Amino acid sequence: MTNAIEAARLIGLDWGTTHARSYLLAPGTGAPRLLDQRAGDGILSVSPDDPDRDAAFNAILRTLVADWQQASPGLPMIACGMVGAAQGWREASYRSLPTPLAGDGGMTTVDTDFGALPIIAGVKKSRPNADVIRGEETQLAGLVPELAAGRTTLVVMPGTHTKWAQVRDGVLLDFDTAMSGELFALLADRSMVGRAGAPPEPGQDWRTGFDWGLDRAGHTDALAFAAFVIRSSVLDAQLPASQVRDAISGLLIGSEVADRAAKLDLASMPIVLVGGAELTGRYQRALARHGVSATLAPDDVTIRGLWRSAVGAGLVGE
Amino acid sequence: MTNAIEAARLIGLDWGTTHARSYLLAPGTGAPRLLDQRAGDGILSVSPDDPDRDAAFNAILRTLVADWQQASPGLPMIACGMVGAAQGWREASYRSLPTPLAGDGGMTTVDTDFGALPIIAGVKKSRPNADVIRGEETQLAGLVPELAAGRTTLVVMPGTHTKWAQVRDGVLLDFDTAMSGELFALLADRSMVGRAGAPPEPGQDWRTGFDWGLDRAGHTDALAFAAFVIRSSVLDAQLPASQVRDAISGLLIGSEVADRAAKLDLASMPIVLVGGAELTGRYQRALARHGVSATLAPDDVTIRGLWRSAVGAGLVGE
Repeated sequence: MTNAIEAARLIGLDWGTTHARSYLLAPGTGAPRLLDQRAGDGILSVSPDDPDRDAAFNAILRTLVADWQQASPGLPMIACGMVGAAQGWREASYRSLPTPLAGDGGMTTVDTDFGALPIIAGVKKSRPNADVIRGEETQLAGLVPELAAGRTTLVVMPGTHTKWAQVRDGVLLDFDTAMSGELFALLADRSMVGRAGAPPEPGQDWRTGFDWGLDRAGHTDALAFAAFVIRSSVLDAQLPASQVRDAISGLLIGSEVADRAAKLDLASMPIVLVGGAELTGRYQRALARHGVSATLAPDDVTIRGLWRSAVGAGLVGE
Repeated sequence: MTNAIEAARLIGLDWGTTHARSYLLAPGTGAPRLLDQRAGDGILSVSPDDPDRDAAFNAILRTLVADWQQASPGLPMIACGMVGAAQGWREASYRSLPTPLAGDGGMTTVDTDFGALPIIAGVKKSRPNADVIRGEETQLAGLVPELAAGRTTLVVMPGTHTKWAQVRDGVLLDFDTAMSGELFALLADRSMVGRAGAPPEPGQDWRTGFDWGLDRAGHTDALAFAAFVIRSSVLDAQLPASQVRDAISGLLIGSEVADRAAKLDLASMPIVLVGGAELTGRYQRALARHGVSATLAPDDVTIRGLWRSAVGAGLVGE
């Protein structure tokens, strides 16, 4: 730790709705070196009615950075995520499209008990439909050096609210959000469809039920019809109850990918997936139905993006 | 009541999952006359583990028919709905497609403390996708005399699980279920989209938000994308929070109708809506986007169907 703190040049914070993470970072080759990390509370733990919200956020920040700042006073800090939302510590107003992904153009700085904390702005669009990202722009910034120059790459970031972003030469051109993860939880855990299901059998291959769902994810099928067929198929012994969750997953991810395939020329663009192995594997399988393959992003794009944004803002050297 | 009971020729029961209704019926012109009615518990109130399920169902039946049977012993009875499901009193096995909608071909009789109770069978299909109805077949039987002869009518029965049935000359040809009502409840009451909403303003016109949702119900749009746009549009001040529920409704019903329009030639068939004014009005509005109009079914199709089924089974005369 003594050696580590001497090498440290930046504290990066990924501060979201339910969780916060802090990273102690040093320069590295290709990517920054992660020297140490901490976990803390998300912004939801601070009530909107708290009479002293500054103190409440400083208390969380203390758990995330205090010992590092004590060992190496004045270490620069940078944050991304919902900490910059209206419900966060200080609202970092959104940037508009198209926007460069790393630079000092979109930060709002809050004065904390541990020094200045610049918060990276999210991105907002209004046309043809409204949408926002806050946090993913930093992951995208970390990914930029991995992307082919001169081409538009489609970056898919699966999660509760999956983001589909188009990036070219370090510039975010467009993005859309699909709430497939949230719909999965609603259908699997709270609907009559999920109630027809049963826990997976030991050793069961997720691909069997997932493919069953993919088969039913045609682009003209409203989810209201297609999801109910899962339930009816269990009652008719066409689908084992143990495969219901995978079938819901296949139907939702398949419909999401079919929607994109109807609107974008998937075959013409490199596709990169950002996320954990389980979810990205499902998206790769759904994309393969459309004859395209996707590569996986490095798993440290968040710290890469925090570092690159700090470099762009002049907080640290290259 | 004394006069009423003398005219009565049938007790019809619509016995569902959460509610039961009993109807005291006499012959009428066009439709049976409703002399009296009762409400009682649905099948969910009887535990699957009850050691004497017969006694538990008889206790509910007592609340529904006892005084009528006491005043006029031996009145024939007939039931439809989930009372004939595997979780009901006695399983009435499903009929297959195509099936005539009124007749004695599909009943299972249970011996009750108040005499024989024939239960009308539901209908099941396995191809091209599995689906079942139980209860709606009786409403359809009641509707048959209202439908044009020699043509296939599309009957839409909105609800938690909306049924789309095709009927020709008294025969049920096909049907499909859309869980739009259940999805509405999940999205409006339990999702991040619903959380962006607020209660309607006093006197607010439901059509404003509903049309906003209809506008976004294109047939290539996956619900996971389109539903999230509702939330983003509120945050971007493009949609008032008070219209979120109507927008969700418009998106879901619009997507459901667009799905049918992609698969059926809606303009070639009469369309009839069965249900209450609020929901049927929404479906009429969504159908109008596809250039077709729908007529409303009489609101007593359930008792008409119970009566016609009893006639078909020889329990009462015409």
